[in-house]
Amino acid sequence: MARSWTLPDATVLTDPEALEPYRRDESHVQGELPLAVALPRGPAALKELVRLAKAEGFGLVPRGAGTGKAGGCVPADRRAVVVDFSAWRGEIRLSPQDLCLSAPASAPLREVKAAASTEGLFYPPDPNSWESCALGGTLATNAGGPNACKYGMTRHWVLSVDALLEDGEIHTFGISSVKANAGPALGQLLIGSEGIFGFILGATLRLTPLPREHATLLLPVARWEDLLDLPGRLAASGYLPSAFEFFDPAVLAELRAHGPEEARRLPGEALAILEFDDRGCTSSAFLEGLMDLLGPVAEHLEIASDARQRAGIWAVRRMTSSFLKERHPKKVSEDIVVPRSRLREFFAGLERLAIPSVTYGHLGDGNLHVNLLGAGEADPAKLEGQLLDLFRLALSLGGTLSGEHGIGLSKRDAFLALSDPGQIQALRALKRALDPSGIFNPGKVI
Amino acid sequence: MARSWTLPDATVLTDPEALEPYRRDESHVQGELPLAVALPRGPAALKELVRLAKAEGFGLVPRGAGTGKAGGCVPADRRAVVVDFSAWRGEIRLSPQDLCLSAPASAPLREVKAAASTEGLFYPPDPNSWESCALGGTLATNAGGPNACKYGMTRHWVLSVDALLEDGEIHTFGISSVKANAGPALGQLLIGSEGIFGFILGATLRLTPLPREHATLLLPVARWEDLLDLPGRLAASGYLPSAFEFFDPAVLAELRAHGPEEARRLPGEALAILEFDDRGCTSSAFLEGLMDLLGPVAEHLEIASDARQRAGIWAVRRMTSSFLKERHPKKVSEDIVVPRSRLREFFAGLERLAIPSVTYGHLGDGNLHVNLLGAGEADPAKLEGQLLDLFRLALSLGGTLSGEHGIGLSKRDAFLALSDPGQIQALRALKRALDPSGIFNPGKVI
Repeated sequence: MARSWTLPDATVLTDPEALEPYRRDESHVQGELPLAVALPRGPAALKELVRLAKAEGFGLVPRGAGTGKAGGCVPADRRAVVVDFSAWRGEIRLSPQDLCLSAPASAPLREVKAAASTEGLFYPPDPNSWESCALGGTLATNAGGPNACKYGMTRHWVLSVDALLEDGEIHTFGISSVKANAGPALGQLLIGSEGIFGFILGATLRLTPLPREHATLLLPVARWEDLLDLPGRLAASGYLPSAFEFFDPAVLAELRAHGPEEARRLPGEALAILEFDDRGCTSSAFLEGLMDLLGPVAEHLEIASDARQRAGIWAVRRMTSSFLKERHPKKVSEDIVVPRSRLREFFAGLERLAIPSVTYGHLGDGNLHVNLLGAGEADPAKLEGQLLDLFRLALSLGGTLSGEHGIGLSKRDAFLALSDPGQIQALRALKRALDPSGIFNPGKVI
Repeated sequence: MARSWTLPDATVLTDPEALEPYRRDESHVQGELPLAVALPRGPAALKELVRLAKAEGFGLVPRGAGTGKAGGCVPADRRAVVVDFSAWRGEIRLSPQDLCLSAPASAPLREVKAAASTEGLFYPPDPNSWESCALGGTLATNAGGPNACKYGMTRHWVLSVDALLEDGEIHTFGISSVKANAGPALGQLLIGSEGIFGFILGATLRLTPLPREHATLLLPVARWEDLLDLPGRLAASGYLPSAFEFFDPAVLAELRAHGPEEARRLPGEALAILEFDDRGCTSSAFLEGLMDLLGPVAEHLEIASDARQRAGIWAVRRMTSSFLKERHPKKVSEDIVVPRSRLREFFAGLERLAIPSVTYGHLGDGNLHVNLLGAGEADPAKLEGQLLDLFRLALSLGGTLSGEHGIGLSKRDAFLALSDPGQIQALRALKRALDPSGIFNPGKVI
């Protein structure tokens, strides 16, 4: 059936070989083969796609750069057309006076961040895929990253969104100002909704002055537990890191035993990387105050004094994911959150569960990437049970099962099983209200 | 009928004299007399109120401290019961380790801010009524204030909300961490929804380190237009004020002619008050950089060097509203937003409209309080026409008709008349989805 379409201003792929890559993103999920892939170049194609989807009863699955980690952009069933936004052209338009920029969903996040910096401005969201992902994906998933602990998530930086709704039209929710209070925030409902209510086509993003200074610290601690109350102690003393990453003792031990040269020399029981980007954070007054707080827990302490040293410290963080992936090709990396005041209880609980795992991630906001090392080799039912145990542990401590990746396809069943039924009921009511024909990203989230 | 109720754990008022004050908030709107006022002390009363409202077909109107500026908490018709949350007890619970606090909707915002500061932490939202309003009202209306230009609005500081939905149950949306991405953000939909989808009963709020230094500047400028591109120029140079308030030439002239002693000496054509709260903002390096930017536009410049001088500068801002109210008792104060890059066009357009008005407000985020001086004496139809002209002007420049007060009852008709019909349709679909019996704050917003 898809072969008979003519879409205005779009390319349509139907060759099975061309469709095959659309079954995957960067998660461990494999989706179904879509009926077709449409690459719209403008609104006319979208209007026609909405009409066809309703008339022929297929779903529309949005896709940016395919870097998602929850299977949100792969078809959940075979009655789906993937809408690949990569052919959609549009400019990034800066308005320094308004402290904002506008960009199409297809804009690479890297280019969005670079455009802001040309005017001395900063767009903080920095998911791990920031050099390869598209803005639209970060909006649909409310992407996070290390900077979230100071700057908040993607949603905190969105002023307005242009969205395709089920009426086939494009609506704009919001204006180019951080102050705007005319009616409930439909735009905020769309951000992080993973395309189930409509598709985000572009956005106006709030910007802030570009930090001029960075203090980056590599902090091996003598006692692992000492790390766990550091975020709160720093904040109460006026220090809010722009990034606070950590590696648990197992990750540090593996890096020391098998990692690259620069990791082998690392002392201590666990490791943190802290970065500050406040004005004056490289002054001796700032650093001395910081040392008073960090000294008592540090086994050792390195402060980057130039860009090269800063890059060296971040390289340790950046290589960890691929290093672990190489040593444990079948590992599954999870994305839970635990309130920072409950971290000790969490790690005690994780030990009781006896799931073979190592943990690193974003200590500054409690977002932990628990890596189940043998997951891919385990019997799938056993893995599912382990993941449910892990999610239940996080939930029992007031946490949640996703910090930054979202629910998508990979966590849908767990989300439905573990959530407040009233919340699921409310989400389903919203889905029926905004997408009565059920064309937008069917089978995802709920 | 209301007299026959028995509500568990609540006080019920039905005496018309006791009900009368519930027809007003701090806007110029007068609502209808409610059937009754219920003051619940716990969830059991709310469950019963929801049951009764559905059974007897009346609406529930939420009320905090009654300091709203859009008539959101006054009954739109006579089939309404006001739910006054002031008798609801609950503690403010701080978790410095999690950089958050939890509070009931009835908590005074003043106490919320004070509680945070006891641990060296800061809750930024600062609506003008911050010393008298209740937290719940600020959540329902997504309150703003001067600090929004740096810190964003109330919604940016809410981690989770406890909300009463139409099923009569209390649901919690969100967790105690800035990183949380499990499903669409129902909590964000409720913040700023003015009670039309459900009632917010409490929240967990995100905190940040309390600023230790403030640089407060009184800046009379030689030329009014010079103010208008200052927000963007400051930001591109790395300076983001935590407040950037202004007075147009008419307000300044009136202050100079008839204001208190300290205002009479003010030179210049227009006036701004800027405040910075970055670490190190009182250092000479910071201030010298700032002077390079401000010097060329300043007719005069005062920098507060101690708390007394800071309070003196803010007193000029604080007294302006009551000073103008005293001189123009029938004035109506509006709350539009114009993107900062369009401010010159806006003021030119306002002059063409020839509406007798003066303007002050939040230049740092384009939120302008246009005061229509003779509004209360004008024929109501003429006033309505002037307000519509004003809103149309703001909208034509990419702005909006409310920056921080919300829509409530006072701007409902204008909001419906001037909005994208697709947006209103989506909001009404959401309303039917979440509140199928239509019991929550009927007649408001949409």
